[in-house]
Amino acid sequence: MSSAPPTEQHFIGVELSAAVVRAALVAADGQALARREEALSAGELGAQVARLVAGLRDEAGGRVAGVGVGVPGLVNPQTGRVVISTDVPSAVRGDLLAELKAATGLPVVLDNDANAGALGEYTVGAGRGGRNMFYVTIGTGIGGALILEGRLWRGVSGFAGEFGHITIDPEGVECTCGNVGCLETVASAPNIVRRTQERLRRDSTSSLSRLGLAKNFSAADVAHEARNGDDFALLMIERTGRHIGTAVAAVINLLNVELVVLGGGVMEAGELILNPIIREAGRRSFQPCFEATQIVAATLGPDAVPIGAAMLARDAARHAA
Amino acid sequence: MSSAPPTEQHFIGVELSAAVVRAALVAADGQALARREEALSAGELGAQVARLVAGLRDEAGGRVAGVGVGVPGLVNPQTGRVVISTDVPSAVRGDLLAELKAATGLPVVLDNDANAGALGEYTVGAGRGGRNMFYVTIGTGIGGALILEGRLWRGVSGFAGEFGHITIDPEGVECTCGNVGCLETVASAPNIVRRTQERLRRDSTSSLSRLGLAKNFSAADVAHEARNGDDFALLMIERTGRHIGTAVAAVINLLNVELVVLGGGVMEAGELILNPIIREAGRRSFQPCFEATQIVAATLGPDAVPIGAAMLARDAARHAA
Repeated sequence: MSSAPPTEQHFIGVELSAAVVRAALVAADGQALARREEALSAGELGAQVARLVAGLRDEAGGRVAGVGVGVPGLVNPQTGRVVISTDVPSAVRGDLLAELKAATGLPVVLDNDANAGALGEYTVGAGRGGRNMFYVTIGTGIGGALILEGRLWRGVSGFAGEFGHITIDPEGVECTCGNVGCLETVASAPNIVRRTQERLRRDSTSSLSRLGLAKNFSAADVAHEARNGDDFALLMIERTGRHIGTAVAAVINLLNVELVVLGGGVMEAGELILNPIIREAGRRSFQPCFEATQIVAATLGPDAVPIGAAMLARDAARHAA
Repeated sequence: MSSAPPTEQHFIGVELSAAVVRAALVAADGQALARREEALSAGELGAQVARLVAGLRDEAGGRVAGVGVGVPGLVNPQTGRVVISTDVPSAVRGDLLAELKAATGLPVVLDNDANAGALGEYTVGAGRGGRNMFYVTIGTGIGGALILEGRLWRGVSGFAGEFGHITIDPEGVECTCGNVGCLETVASAPNIVRRTQERLRRDSTSSLSRLGLAKNFSAADVAHEARNGDDFALLMIERTGRHIGTAVAAVINLLNVELVVLGGGVMEAGELILNPIIREAGRRSFQPCFEATQIVAATLGPDAVPIGAAMLARDAARHAA
């Protein structure tokens, strides 16, 4: 063991996603000191994460006290096993936790990626200073996490924060979860593309949009065209924001938190999406609750989950001490 | 001061509503020992409550350590002042808290009636045994309150639990709060009556319903006819349940609580409304969250708020000790 005092210990945070694995060496105060990123190698996931951890550990001169991993899916808080992960199914097979512990010789914690992202933003990002916040991440999927009195509220079985499956249109489209009209069916990146394509097919005037000329486009392209002043793209982003705002209003009404922090790829549209979110949340929430809440964009970008995962490892080490 | 040990101290809980004031003498374990009820006398509200308290205090042989009052509206948790109360506007005028303290010479706490009801059900009702529960009361208005880890979560400004203002139909009817499509616009008692009347006017086949013959009827009448097998009344109750279930699903998704307890006059329809609530909540919530949650009817009836208000007084006394 290192003889350095605990305050100088570092932690490694890892984010798993469908495409990439991101890892960061993080100081106990949440500052990211070094980063590594690789395309996900599903066939050897455990070995890949262990290799990234070993590399960053060398960089830290060995002073690493624990590893945290943020997984897009449900993690059983009792066993630390990944129960469901649509994006990284290889995380469900085998026992990733045991494999990582054995390969690194370090304490390892696994948690939902939105929980990690929330803790990252809370520690060094947009959530600093607010002890009660709801964090939302909107990308390929939609995640959420809740921090109350400075601590993650995971719920009784570890599954709290399922913001993406709030019904915002009772007569809406079918969701992968079996419900109809979940927020995810309209506001996730793939669903922004789906809605935009449907509307382009339906609405002849929208052929004036440059998106109508593109065969394939992404949600980021829609945001890009909106920023360039394309009215149709702007409409799609604004409507998406209004749907998100409806679900944010439910959070504000139920929880009366002081802060709602929104991150993930879809939020890269910036104020074009943030402003309609705020307007719709204001319209649809109980005013005294709304007035007590700030709705802001996340600030850590791709660092949020690795930093937060490292903070989960830090908190587990403190808890164990 | 009494020389009895603190465990033998009693508390008085009071519920204010548009029509009546209910007070109960309650033991420290939550058992109601005596009850008084009067029609609300808005012109002399403080004096009326003080008189009810004095009567119950005499009955207790003086061994009363504090008074709690549940108010239908928003109570500022810092000042204890009632900020908004549509049902009992006289509670907002003047300073009810100071008046009651002066009149009784006892410690007094004021809180939202749903918070009190939640604590009542949690202590001796349907919430016993679950440390994490969401409580809903559906009557003239709709209230909600959240208990996490055995403690009321009031939110940063004391307004958490605004279940009635969750949007369940983005294109719905205008609500008194300014939003459209709040749960309250379809599921509160007056809105059940409104929807039933509208449908009776619109739908000729529903003239077969006995409700079509009645000039004036209440939500309780609709429930009564449903229990007597009136298909139309049954349909109205079932649809109401489905709307409530949609909002319950949002709670389950966000909070992953173990228990949702539903009380208030509208729930007197029993299983006719509870079953569609459970079915719709199951359909509209994320399955791992739903499977962790029990959805049950409240069991204390009109005792919930007075008992819970007394428990608020008990907890304040413990906190002060």
